[in-house]
Amino acid sequence: MSQPLLSIPAATETLPQPYLLFLGDTTEAGYAKTAFGLRDWARERCVGEFACAGATVSTGLAFMTPLQAYAAGARSLVIGVANPGGYIPTAWFEPLQQALEAGLDLIGGMHARLADIVPLRETAARLGRRLIDVRQPPSDIPVASGRPRRGRRLLTLGTDCALGKKYTALALARAFVARGIDADFRATGQTGILIAGQGMPIDAVVSDFAAGAAEMLSPDAADDHWDVIEGQGSLFHPAYAGVSLALLHGSQPDVVVICHQPGRTHMLGYPQHPLPSVEATIELALQLGRRTQPAIRCAGVTLNTSHLAEAEALRLLSHERDRLGLAVADPMRGGAAFERLVEDCLA
Amino acid sequence: MSQPLLSIPAATETLPQPYLLFLGDTTEAGYAKTAFGLRDWARERCVGEFACAGATVSTGLAFMTPLQAYAAGARSLVIGVANPGGYIPTAWFEPLQQALEAGLDLIGGMHARLADIVPLRETAARLGRRLIDVRQPPSDIPVASGRPRRGRRLLTLGTDCALGKKYTALALARAFVARGIDADFRATGQTGILIAGQGMPIDAVVSDFAAGAAEMLSPDAADDHWDVIEGQGSLFHPAYAGVSLALLHGSQPDVVVICHQPGRTHMLGYPQHPLPSVEATIELALQLGRRTQPAIRCAGVTLNTSHLAEAEALRLLSHERDRLGLAVADPMRGGAAFERLVEDCLA
Repeated sequence: MSQPLLSIPAATETLPQPYLLFLGDTTEAGYAKTAFGLRDWARERCVGEFACAGATVSTGLAFMTPLQAYAAGARSLVIGVANPGGYIPTAWFEPLQQALEAGLDLIGGMHARLADIVPLRETAARLGRRLIDVRQPPSDIPVASGRPRRGRRLLTLGTDCALGKKYTALALARAFVARGIDADFRATGQTGILIAGQGMPIDAVVSDFAAGAAEMLSPDAADDHWDVIEGQGSLFHPAYAGVSLALLHGSQPDVVVICHQPGRTHMLGYPQHPLPSVEATIELALQLGRRTQPAIRCAGVTLNTSHLAEAEALRLLSHERDRLGLAVADPMRGGAAFERLVEDCLA
Repeated sequence: MSQPLLSIPAATETLPQPYLLFLGDTTEAGYAKTAFGLRDWARERCVGEFACAGATVSTGLAFMTPLQAYAAGARSLVIGVANPGGYIPTAWFEPLQQALEAGLDLIGGMHARLADIVPLRETAARLGRRLIDVRQPPSDIPVASGRPRRGRRLLTLGTDCALGKKYTALALARAFVARGIDADFRATGQTGILIAGQGMPIDAVVSDFAAGAAEMLSPDAADDHWDVIEGQGSLFHPAYAGVSLALLHGSQPDVVVICHQPGRTHMLGYPQHPLPSVEATIELALQLGRRTQPAIRCAGVTLNTSHLAEAEALRLLSHERDRLGLAVADPMRGGAAFERLVEDCLA
């Protein structure tokens, strides 16, 4: 019963680009993570930023009206901010309609769907523009086949949520490409999908089809092609482990990289559930992953050390490398540790 | 964008009962599994059966027109057959409208949604009847909390799909009640939901909320109350393991019972994936289940021996009991082996 207006970004369909980043009337930088993520990881696909009067947050990109952005090549406006409630305030309606009038499609990833807002729906219908919700999975996802696929695959897995699985996958995909390897970052969450321009919102897929969605996201490919897949949740997470397992089974990764935040003692928001160790996470990932990929191996670990001083971070990375006998790096610090992780992934 | 016409059976809402079972124009008994399941497990809530001209399959219940069924107490007509395509043929429209006119709500569990059929939707709207799709989960499912709940819980888990998880749970719940124990069968699939009159179609829930849906299905209860929860899929299934894990984590079962079909060598429809052993299934269920229920234990095993002669079945049950050191029964054969399983569940 969905409105046909919604164009759905599937694993195989690319979002209209480049983007104009919309910052709303935001005065709190923490709400603009999507805009910052796009600036940091997809700079070449962002022509500029746009905001309502009163906004104080900026990505540092050039301010453009929708008309200027369209002239500069933009083909969509991305809502780059999220309110705490996940809704679209009425103050945004006029600038969003302005973008539609200027020739841009609208892309959102909030809980509120763009097509549920009558003025936007009517304007888009009149002008033939698309209202795209990146949290909306495609409707043709099959049940997983379990059939082995050609090509190489890497999946990031976490001890918990929100500690670096997306950044690790992005950094590894970028490093692979820099070495001349044919590699794609495969996004599974809304910010990743906007960065990649396509992907699969795995956590929005009906559970019976979640492993099938993962298969769809990293299809058959050339033998030397790498898909670097953004992990979700954690196999130990009391709410999301099912998503993580479906993604693991469907991805059939040759290689996993475990992502961890040193110092975190409990699952975020779940004080009754202690964080699993890195070793336990490696062990469970390999144990469960073997079901669809018998040759699965762990190539290393990334640590999110953003809260540590440089010297302390390097000491910790080195200590963990010796303790685990694996490459251990912080992808945001790069360096020799990260180079070794890249090599061990490709080994 | 769903039609408000649809009334959604939540874990806490009961379907309109008793039922009139509708057999369509079916000539193939294999398509009428839902009707037979209701006759076998919810006989007291079925007033009779109804069919189109040309139907040759019967449940053996009295044939009634919708008007007769309403007079006999029926409050809904259940579509008890499924076509291979999962659609609703035009030949059914007239008898289904007749049921609406007679005062009955319609309940379906096919892929095709009743509310998508315009003549049914219009008639239901005019008469104030409900078109209920038991595959439609409620819209207010929360993310799982991981918080321990009061009351006792038992979950059936399988080495594969379609080998007796629902029948095992139904038989155990019935045996518990027969012993005077306060127990509920908690349904997670469409036939189970129709049998119980309520439940949670777990495989139709968006994956991020699947564990939350399991928590919702077996809420806080009295300390001596048992929820006997119908399992889905298998932790080893290449397509559905994520569903099984979410159900395991959200159910937080005190007790698991492993269901298996002796002689099955590979996952149904997945010839590349050998069936796991019963022992491996017990081990993985306990290992993963401990994350949300540290005291989880396996009370025994059920074998679906419907393809074996009585003597051979009893020999196998006895052999497996000795080999595994656990109660092993076929719930459909009952007997001392099943009595021991019931006792070990409650121990």
